[in-house]
Amino acid sequence: MGVLAVGSVALDSVKTPFGREEEILGGSATYFSIAASYFTDVSIVAVVGEDFPAHHVASLQKLGIDTSGLERKPGKTFRWKGEYGFDLNTARTLDTQLNVFSDFSPKLLAAQRTLDHLFLGNIDPDLQRNVLEQMERPRVIACDTMNYWIGKKPDSLRQTLAQVDILLVNDAETRQLAREANLVRAARIILGWGPKTIVIKRGEYGALMIDGKSAFGAPAFPLEEVVDPTGAGDSFAGGFVGYLAAKRSCDQAALRKAVVFGSVMASFNVSEFGPRRLAALTYAEIEARFREFRALTHFEDL
Amino acid sequence: MGVLAVGSVALDSVKTPFGREEEILGGSATYFSIAASYFTDVSIVAVVGEDFPAHHVASLQKLGIDTSGLERKPGKTFRWKGEYGFDLNTARTLDTQLNVFSDFSPKLLAAQRTLDHLFLGNIDPDLQRNVLEQMERPRVIACDTMNYWIGKKPDSLRQTLAQVDILLVNDAETRQLAREANLVRAARIILGWGPKTIVIKRGEYGALMIDGKSAFGAPAFPLEEVVDPTGAGDSFAGGFVGYLAAKRSCDQAALRKAVVFGSVMASFNVSEFGPRRLAALTYAEIEARFREFRALTHFEDL
Repeated sequence: MGVLAVGSVALDSVKTPFGREEEILGGSATYFSIAASYFTDVSIVAVVGEDFPAHHVASLQKLGIDTSGLERKPGKTFRWKGEYGFDLNTARTLDTQLNVFSDFSPKLLAAQRTLDHLFLGNIDPDLQRNVLEQMERPRVIACDTMNYWIGKKPDSLRQTLAQVDILLVNDAETRQLAREANLVRAARIILGWGPKTIVIKRGEYGALMIDGKSAFGAPAFPLEEVVDPTGAGDSFAGGFVGYLAAKRSCDQAALRKAVVFGSVMASFNVSEFGPRRLAALTYAEIEARFREFRALTHFEDL
Repeated sequence: MGVLAVGSVALDSVKTPFGREEEILGGSATYFSIAASYFTDVSIVAVVGEDFPAHHVASLQKLGIDTSGLERKPGKTFRWKGEYGFDLNTARTLDTQLNVFSDFSPKLLAAQRTLDHLFLGNIDPDLQRNVLEQMERPRVIACDTMNYWIGKKPDSLRQTLAQVDILLVNDAETRQLAREANLVRAARIILGWGPKTIVIKRGEYGALMIDGKSAFGAPAFPLEEVVDPTGAGDSFAGGFVGYLAAKRSCDQAALRKAVVFGSVMASFNVSEFGPRRLAALTYAEIEARFREFRALTHFEDL
């Protein structure tokens, strides 16, 4: 029961056309865990430095997230600095300081090895497999990656993908990974390598899920206020995997609702800087937006 | 009863990563009319030169399209030459020869003035209003435009929009027209100028329809073969307006199904060069893809 989240916990400095914030809570494991925490128990494996503020840890714990696997090491916390232009679609990275994250070597606690859902955030595919080896027998393994690993360690990434159930990536990563411009064909190529399902996150355009038999497309929730897109993909993944863990099913109906819950969590996340809005939700708000998604996408039969 | 389509009829030369074709049938009124012809009676107002092949006119007539308003003038037909890269999202225009289209002045036949649905293709907004003045009392006026007119004749375009029911444009045009980066806010600004509904065509990402009360989002149909995107937007408009004309309704349920029929027609159109596939459909194929759209987008309630 519950989800194990492996990834980064960081301090982000973000500038968008709507303001700037310095050294706020960030990282893939952070956004994922907060989003998933509304659906199921979440336990985190990550590393921070001595400078990581205790109140950030407390804010995760307040959401019920198990932070006993959050290692604190001598040195400084991973820092990312980025900027978004008016279209808010792509971040321009201004600075990355890996710090203690540079030699992150995930060590799972005994209680974490038996969790039945696993999210492998965007880290070195060698480390992703190292985590897999420490797990007993997860029912569902979801995985993210990025252009850096696709280019740098394609063989290792293929070995990881062979063990993964669900791959969550964006359009460009899908195309780059499969070396195929057509997204549907690219997805089919990747499905041939191991994953049973691929979920393509398309930012403001929504998400497309493809498996061996069918496809599911969902628009993004149309928002009048998008303040900071940082963490949208990881919030999506958190809602997606969190719902599947709570539902204890991976059938097509559950997967589709998981995509919608992922979209719901991403839509909340982008409306304030950092994970601030995401961390202050009620389950009633999440369900209300799920219903708004149905209203957004419903049309009658012939 | 029926739709009047005003726009261009052209000879296109198109190059994509999958081949090239020279001087094939093109133009906004062409794609629109062919798509709409599966749903309702369509009559065309456009101009071609002496060099326009008779078999192209015959192919439109074979679909039941009334071409008596297709004026043939001394000179050469409008020619467009464009190229698409591997992502197939945006055309690079290599050459435009307006020829007889440069002094196109739409003159409606008596029978055309009483048609109850009107599609104003992407032409000079002065001409769009000129057409409106010739119409008796259309029930639904749909309108397209492009960056050129938004930049060149913003005041005239605003005057046209004041009389339009439904505006069909793409993302970039919506933002440019409203001078607002956020798409939802941009749509609301434009709705304040006259149109009751705005349909934002997003190519491979689908379509978003916004009116004063609600929003509807539909993904594009995920295709493994996209050969030539030329005319996708006009095919969408043809399916959209054609369905509304057949249904004789503009309520929310009809508008939503119209968006899906628009997406269906666009999805067929891009699978071969020019309007070849679009012109060879059966209504059974169209309904089958409508049902595939439902399968693509359906998810269960909470």
